[in-house]
Amino acid sequence: MVAPAVFSPVLTPFTADLSPDSERFVQHCRWLLRHDVGLAVFGTNSEGNSLSVPEKCELLDALIRAGLPTQRMLPATGSCSLSDAVALSNAATQAGSAGVLVLPPFYYNNPSEDGLFRFYAELVERVGDARLRIYLYHIPAVSGVPITAALVRRLLKAYPHAIAGMKDTGGDWASTESMIREFGPGGFGVFAGTETVLLAALRAGGPGCITATANVNPARIVHLARHWRDGGADELQRELNATREIFASYPLIAAMKSAVAGFRADEGWRRVRPPLTALSDGQHAELLQRLTAHGFTSFNKET
Amino acid sequence: MVAPAVFSPVLTPFTADLSPDSERFVQHCRWLLRHDVGLAVFGTNSEGNSLSVPEKCELLDALIRAGLPTQRMLPATGSCSLSDAVALSNAATQAGSAGVLVLPPFYYNNPSEDGLFRFYAELVERVGDARLRIYLYHIPAVSGVPITAALVRRLLKAYPHAIAGMKDTGGDWASTESMIREFGPGGFGVFAGTETVLLAALRAGGPGCITATANVNPARIVHLARHWRDGGADELQRELNATREIFASYPLIAAMKSAVAGFRADEGWRRVRPPLTALSDGQHAELLQRLTAHGFTSFNKET
Repeated sequence: MVAPAVFSPVLTPFTADLSPDSERFVQHCRWLLRHDVGLAVFGTNSEGNSLSVPEKCELLDALIRAGLPTQRMLPATGSCSLSDAVALSNAATQAGSAGVLVLPPFYYNNPSEDGLFRFYAELVERVGDARLRIYLYHIPAVSGVPITAALVRRLLKAYPHAIAGMKDTGGDWASTESMIREFGPGGFGVFAGTETVLLAALRAGGPGCITATANVNPARIVHLARHWRDGGADELQRELNATREIFASYPLIAAMKSAVAGFRADEGWRRVRPPLTALSDGQHAELLQRLTAHGFTSFNKET
Repeated sequence: MVAPAVFSPVLTPFTADLSPDSERFVQHCRWLLRHDVGLAVFGTNSEGNSLSVPEKCELLDALIRAGLPTQRMLPATGSCSLSDAVALSNAATQAGSAGVLVLPPFYYNNPSEDGLFRFYAELVERVGDARLRIYLYHIPAVSGVPITAALVRRLLKAYPHAIAGMKDTGGDWASTESMIREFGPGGFGVFAGTETVLLAALRAGGPGCITATANVNPARIVHLARHWRDGGADELQRELNATREIFASYPLIAAMKSAVAGFRADEGWRRVRPPLTALSDGQHAELLQRLTAHGFTSFNKET
C-alpha cells in the first residue's frame, strides 16, 4: 500500500509560452509534500493528457533533480497508446515511484473487457519490473471507459502483485464502498476519487483519497485523514465539502489555478493549456473573495 | 483542395510483438495509391491514437523512404496534447503532405468554443508554415467533441489559408450538406466521412470522402467518385452501401484487417492493438465467406 492517505493530481503550471514550468511545479510539489500530500502528477486535474510524453518525463526528472522523494509519487501514466503507457510507466517505476495511476485507453467507445484486460496485461508484461504497482483509474464520466469489478477480479487473478489498487472517481459511493469491501481485505487499495467521501472511505477500510482539491486545501483534508476516528470528524468532513463546493461552482482546474495564483501572489499560475480556458478576471476576483471569506490565506506559509 | 476524391484512414499493421509493421504498411499504401486512394494515415480506423508520436513519425518516414508521393498523404495529427499535435503536424507539413487531419483535443468533456479555437489557433501559429493545410476532424460519436459551424466560421476568419477543410463523420447528412453549401464555395473542402453518402456529397459540391472501407473496397469507391455524373451512379452507390453493411456488422477495424489478411493470404494482418480485439476465427471465416460471395477476390491484383 502506498504511504500517504491523501494524494493530489498536482496542477501543472505553464510558462508564458505554455511550456510546462518546472520551477513553479517543484515549488508546488514541495508545498504539497510539507502538508503530507502525495504527488499524483499528470492526472486529469494536472492536465496530464494535454502534455506530451517527453514533457512528462522532463517534469518527473525535475522533481528527482530537486531531491523530492519518489516513493511519495504516484504518476499517472495511462494513455490511449500502449507504447506511451509503457514508456511512462517504465520511467516512473525505475525512478522508484510508489506506483503508477493508469487510465484505460480512452479513445475508442466501449472497448471489451478482453481488450482492456489485454491492455493492462501487456503493460505489466512489457514493463517487466517487480517494482511496478498499478493503480487502475476509474473516471468514466471523463474517460468514457469504466473499470468494472469483473475487470479488477480478472487482473488481480493474473497479476496479484502488480495490480495494487485503484482510484475510484465514479461518483457513486455505493460502488466505491463495494469495491473497498470486496478487494480491500486482499491488500488492493481503493482510493476515493474525491475528499467529499474521505471519511466514509476511511470508515469502510479504504486507504484514503486522491483528490484534485488537495492542491488548494491540503492541510484540512490531511487533518481529517489523520483524525477520522476522533469526535468531530463528521464536522470536519462537512467543512471540506463546503470548500469543495466553492471550487466546483467554477471550471475546476482553472479555479484551482486561480486560487494558487491568488494565494501565492503569482499570476502566472492562472495559465491553462487549450482546450481549457482560464477563469475570467471577474470570476477570478470573485473566487478569491469567497475563499478569503472562507478562511483561506497565503499558500506560502507552512500551514 | 487536396487532389484525390477518396482518402482512406490507412489500416496500421502490427508485427507479432505489436510494433507497427512498416513493411506491410508501405505495401498496403502502395496498393491504395494504385487505386487512386489518398493516404489519411493515423486516423481513427488506423488505430492512430493507439500509436505514439515516435511510432507515427517512423511510419511516415518509411513511406517517404519508399518513395511514396507525400502530396497524396493527409496524416491525422490531432492529439489531446497541443505539443504532440504540433510535433506531428510539423513533421507532416515539412514532408510535403497535402494537409493534416486534426481531431480536437478529446479528453476533457465539453470544451468551450473559445478553448477549441485557441487549440487550433496555437497549432497554426506554432507550426508557422505557409504550407500547413488543416482539415478539421468531426467525429463526435468517438471523440465526444463536435466541430461546429460556428467554430469553422471563426477559424476561417482568423486563418483563411491554413484552415483548408474538414472530415465530417457526424453521421447526419443534413448537417454535412449544410457545411458543404456554406463553406464549400469559399474553397473549404468538406469531405464526407463515409462512402455511403459519397454520391450525395459530390452532387452537393463536396470534394469526396475520407472513408475507412476504402482500405478494403478501393476500386469501386473510386469508380463512383470518377463516374458520379454518369447514369447508373445511384446503383453504384447502392452496391457500395451493401458492401459497407457487411463490414459494419462486425467491429469495423478488426473486420477490415481480417479482410486484408484473407484476401492477401497474410494472417499477420489480423493483429490489432489493445483495447481492440481481433475477430474470432469463426467471425473471420464467416466474413471472408460473405465477401467472397459478394465478389471479393485477391487484394494483390491491380484491380
